[in-house]
Amino acid sequence: MEIKVMKNILGENDRIAAENQALFKEKNVYVINLMGSPGAGKTSVLEKTMERLKDKVNMAVIEGDLFTSKDAERIEKHGVPVIQINTAGGCHLDAAMIQQTAPQLDLDKLDLLVVENVGNLVCPAEFAVGEDEKGVVLSITEGDDKPMKYPLIFKESAIALLNKVDLVPFCNFDLKSAEEDIDTLHPGMKVIEVSCTKDQGVDAWCDWLLLRVRAKQGK
Amino acid sequence: MEIKVMKNILGENDRIAAENQALFKEKNVYVINLMGSPGAGKTSVLEKTMERLKDKVNMAVIEGDLFTSKDAERIEKHGVPVIQINTAGGCHLDAAMIQQTAPQLDLDKLDLLVVENVGNLVCPAEFAVGEDEKGVVLSITEGDDKPMKYPLIFKESAIALLNKVDLVPFCNFDLKSAEEDIDTLHPGMKVIEVSCTKDQGVDAWCDWLLLRVRAKQGK
Repeated sequence: MEIKVMKNILGENDRIAAENQALFKEKNVYVINLMGSPGAGKTSVLEKTMERLKDKVNMAVIEGDLFTSKDAERIEKHGVPVIQINTAGGCHLDAAMIQQTAPQLDLDKLDLLVVENVGNLVCPAEFAVGEDEKGVVLSITEGDDKPMKYPLIFKESAIALLNKVDLVPFCNFDLKSAEEDIDTLHPGMKVIEVSCTKDQGVDAWCDWLLLRVRAKQGK
Repeated sequence: MEIKVMKNILGENDRIAAENQALFKEKNVYVINLMGSPGAGKTSVLEKTMERLKDKVNMAVIEGDLFTSKDAERIEKHGVPVIQINTAGGCHLDAAMIQQTAPQLDLDKLDLLVVENVGNLVCPAEFAVGEDEKGVVLSITEGDDKPMKYPLIFKESAIALLNKVDLVPFCNFDLKSAEEDIDTLHPGMKVIEVSCTKDQGVDAWCDWLLLRVRAKQGK
């Protein structure tokens, strides 16, 4: 009974996600759904991304959070349009939330939309929002066992950013082992080692993102 | 419609949680439901706890994970009875899972049962499993904004362990601000600064836990 309901919810979500995807395709907007644990550094990665890309592409951000607008305030400082979705306790964004929110953006002028999901390494991976691709940010402070413990999010994502690598000397994190595990879960997946505080890997990530945006626009 | 279903699920969960609680009361077992983000250090805290307490009280652990038994293997090395629950993608433990699992433990001999929940700062806080109290482990590497961004888990928990405080010098984490936020969310809540690698705060946590166990036994 409960499983049946869950299937209905997911089916309905997929239907709306497909509608969102059609809208974003019509408008030539590349959409990435950025996921990760609380404190993995999603917003910090976004801040670095805006510094690099906001003069090259027209970008906007949709911020998913349980209650506050703390992250949206950080984005707004960079002069990029941002909309805050508060899920009021809900553990992930869903396609309907994006459908209600996206029309508030000037989609005709937009090249890149980043959807920063609720901090959660589990549920967001199950709910498409109409994105082109998903990305996962994993802080190395979370431990190198996390890919195998949370496989779905790595299977679903096109790219993994291993963030806070400047802290590797102070943590028991085996980069090689984690990257091998990610490659086992999702062979050929793009993995970039990133440190926002040391500006490491940010260019590689932005180059990857820019290629996707240009490809969507047929350039 | 969806909200109605959710209420039914939560109502059913509360009913089973109450049954579990009655069983644990009859057996004089103190049960703590330990929650936190992926990689907050729940298992590391447990390893330190077992070192301190396993000769003082009869303890057992129920491990919640999506798929693997990595954490249960870490517990087993300490010679403490452990049962692994794999939720097969489910983002939290629920009362029914504990009801099915608990009879496999020798409850008559048990003083302390630690339920380590799935790594997730959102959903586990909504589902009681029959515990006496909840505890939350927050790694300081997650950022000092997390209590206000994930308030329910702090409101629901009797104790917060701020873990990995040895990394404070390398992170932008304001301990005072985080502790004030926690006190705003849950006035008077017990907060302990912990470092498992430096053995800091572990004694204070174990003393707190031991007092709870003894109180449950009426000693």
